[in-house]
Amino acid sequence: MLLNCDLGESFGAWKMGLDEHVMPHIDMANVACGFHAGDPDVLAQTLKLVNTYQVTLGAHPSYPDRQGFGRRSMQLSEQEIVNALHYQIAAIEGMAKVQGLTLNYVKPHGALYNDMMKSQRILSCVIKAISHYPSELKLMVLATAQQASHQQLADDYNVSLIFEAFADRLYTDEGLLTPRSEAGAVHDKSALLAQVKQLHQQGSVTTASGKSLSLRADTLCVHGDNEASIALIEEIRNVINQ
Amino acid sequence: MLLNCDLGESFGAWKMGLDEHVMPHIDMANVACGFHAGDPDVLAQTLKLVNTYQVTLGAHPSYPDRQGFGRRSMQLSEQEIVNALHYQIAAIEGMAKVQGLTLNYVKPHGALYNDMMKSQRILSCVIKAISHYPSELKLMVLATAQQASHQQLADDYNVSLIFEAFADRLYTDEGLLTPRSEAGAVHDKSALLAQVKQLHQQGSVTTASGKSLSLRADTLCVHGDNEASIALIEEIRNVINQ
Amino acid sequence: MLLNCDLGESFGAWKMGLDEHVMPHIDMANVACGFHAGDPDVLAQTLKLVNTYQVTLGAHPSYPDRQGFGRRSMQLSEQEIVNALHYQIAAIEGMAKVQGLTLNYVKPHGALYNDMMKSQRILSCVIKAISHYPSELKLMVLATAQQASHQQLADDYNVSLIFEAFADRLYTDEGLLTPRSEAGAVHDKSALLAQVKQLHQQGSVTTASGKSLSLRADTLCVHGDNEASIALIEEIRNVINQ
Amino acid sequence: MLLNCDLGESFGAWKMGLDEHVMPHIDMANVACGFHAGDPDVLAQTLKLVNTYQVTLGAHPSYPDRQGFGRRSMQLSEQEIVNALHYQIAAIEGMAKVQGLTLNYVKPHGALYNDMMKSQRILSCVIKAISHYPSELKLMVLATAQQASHQQLADDYNVSLIFEAFADRLYTDEGLLTPRSEAGAVHDKSALLAQVKQLHQQGSVTTASGKSLSLRADTLCVHGDNEASIALIEEIRNVINQ
Repeated sequence: MLLNCDLGESFGAWKMGLDEHVMPHIDMANVACGFHAGDPDVLAQTLKLVNTYQVTLGAHPSYPDRQGFGRRSMQLSEQEIVNALHYQIAAIEGMAKVQGLTLNYVKPHGALYNDMMKSQRILSCVIKAISHYPSELKLMVLATAQQASHQQLADDYNVSLIFEAFADRLYTDEGLLTPRSEAGAVHDKSALLAQVKQLHQQGSVTTASGKSLSLRADTLCVHGDNEASIALIEEIRNVINQ
Repeated sequence: MLLNCDLGESFGAWKMGLDEHVMPHIDMANVACGFHAGDPDVLAQTLKLVNTYQVTLGAHPSYPDRQGFGRRSMQLSEQEIVNALHYQIAAIEGMAKVQGLTLNYVKPHGALYNDMMKSQRILSCVIKAISHYPSELKLMVLATAQQASHQQLADDYNVSLIFEAFADRLYTDEGLLTPRSEAGAVHDKSALLAQVKQLHQQGSVTTASGKSLSLRADTLCVHGDNEASIALIEEIRNVINQ
Repeated sequence: MLLNCDLGESFGAWKMGLDEHVMPHIDMANVACGFHAGDPDVLAQTLKLVNTYQVTLGAHPSYPDRQGFGRRSMQLSEQEIVNALHYQIAAIEGMAKVQGLTLNYVKPHGALYNDMMKSQRILSCVIKAISHYPSELKLMVLATAQQASHQQLADDYNVSLIFEAFADRLYTDEGLLTPRSEAGAVHDKSALLAQVKQLHQQGSVTTASGKSLSLRADTLCVHGDNEASIALIEEIRNVINQ
Repeated sequence: MLLNCDLGESFGAWKMGLDEHVMPHIDMANVACGFHAGDPDVLAQTLKLVNTYQVTLGAHPSYPDRQGFGRRSMQLSEQEIVNALHYQIAAIEGMAKVQGLTLNYVKPHGALYNDMMKSQRILSCVIKAISHYPSELKLMVLATAQQASHQQLADDYNVSLIFEAFADRLYTDEGLLTPRSEAGAVHDKSALLAQVKQLHQQGSVTTASGKSLSLRADTLCVHGDNEASIALIEEIRNVINQ
């Protein structure tokens, strides 16, 4: 089980995330492409770090909403979603090539990610966009109770999926994340590490109602916001290395 | 002598230029990349036209100033210029690949173009950016009295230059364009066609002081703003086909 | 019945609308504030025209989406909507004062207007924003079958409403506009003028199902996109002057 | 001698500055207006803090360059500068009124501030913009060896000036700030406090060449970036309270 993290989310004079400190501890970097965060300078610096630590590179494209950090759903047409994805993927892929790096996968960001997991129409749209892109790219999606049907849809377009799970979030019976607004939605450290262990050893999570739900997770999403979260990555790494 | 034109300069709901009408008449399309004009949707549509008419594709990158249409000089550091160029070139190149197109050259836009022709430091910076980009791309610059030294500089970095001349502008003795604010800076139609003929047949222009200045022009910059300018392209084409 | 029109929707180098030509023919100008269209220079020029023709001035604020021209719904929180409204209203009001003009009303634009008419929560939010703004401003809304309850809601916050109707759009039985995507949604000229006459003389429209629906319309929304639409304004004016 | 500080320079999800912690220690808040930093939400929150601590409110307008944080000079026309100032001043003034606050002065930000101090043409343009704005607003400028002529220029337009000095920067003989790129440009703490003392008690600074230069400083610019800088404000306050 690999560890992925959102990175390159600074913008201009504004810093976000301890990218230099988290990069040595992760396997896959989801790098912002300039629509919700990142700019050409931030992107160049982040790709340099990706190169230094030889992390697998992913694009982290978003709705075009910098002020809202890509967290506000926007009603784009399917063609607008496809074009916005192609533009962002192209920008990061070309800048990666400048540094001798290859783009490996795409993980949509924020509201686009959530909308894709809620709407089959938007998920299809994202899969089609990736299948039409000339380089071979995988798509990272949330591992849910529907992961078999999502796999089928991606197979139809010859797109490989990477399923990710969350260490720190309580799952619903449908295998979705309990909204942060609800009590108990975010695990404390011991529950978090227990969830990682269960995902790793049994391929399942215990949902809000106490059921065991099978989930195949290729990767875990971790965070590099501050020193505590980076220390936590080390503990998660210890669990999955056992 | 080929004809080049700035295209793809619409943005969102705002239209600019008669791209559909000018595309059949030109050889090279300088396509906006999203910083001064263009957006992912405009870019996709413009590339479709480029594909239909099999025009040679160039990137038309700019300073990041949409409100000013890239026409206001901005004091970017050299690294900022390099990163801004790489980002825009990458975005258009990847989107072009989606449609099976290859990016051939780069022509900086507006204030960036002017600053590059006025400052050896900025020209070197642009040449370096293109030489470090992984695809082989030519650079379009203004043919001036300094074109031999510009050629030497580009040769040092293994970058091919495309020299362009302007049909409608009066040249100074240095081979620069007389600023539009000065009287006589913009030719009327007969002076324009005479300048095209002289450039084509004698490889020279007659400057503001009446001197003949030798200029090697690989391409002429034409405009597709309205029906009159498109009709004019046809007349220019007739002159250079003789 | 007054005529209102969206104006000041150019941006930077991009022109939209024949503002100079439509301004003499209208009573109320809904002027873009910079979020979907307009910029400080466009705003200053538009306000100068408002001043010349002594048209009643309205703010035309939007979701922050310039590329989408404010036509794409965005999930802003209520506080975000209030702050976005206050910022835009303040910007236009202050620039209007520079030219000796007074801001009279607010008409939300595009997706924000549609969302406000579909959602009581968003309408309340807009009304509250206007009631908390220190200057006394009216709110322009669509006249629908719910206009009495909308009036009640506005009365609760001491905000005056201006009800507008559309000349060129077919109404549903609920008094909403038939979506443009449906056949017959947009009237031809004779149906348009007939609808104006009916609104003016009988205070009603004939809906898609053929029913007569009472609507109190204080103003009609007209368009100044091209010469034909400006000629049409004159014909509409003739009908309501009879 | 009052203390002023740049505030409200967060944007969207990005935080900058410890505004909550610095606000109790300063007299005048230069609040970003949305062009280089700040957005409607950040502005509303910052104004709330201004209200809580009853700090004198200033607008901190900028060139339109968010990615460059307003630190890159841009060649705007005079009319563009005037309109950009009016738009930003209007936006903050209106939002301030919502909270019962009055805007007191304007301090241009970053490159606009530097350009204004280097160019009489731009300083005149800024003064004119403020004199034409309907509310009475002061202008904060750098106290230099030219402060008498700057005062004269402002008097011609009936604009009051507030002269500011910097505690932490070495002055040139012309009373300008030594560029940060030069050795010794930024004082260590003891030199900084000595400069504050000299400004306060003798109305002068010791320049790079060792000369004493008379400067009338109404206010000192302080910083709230981190805890150390806030602690320093307290020490500066102690010096000027003696």
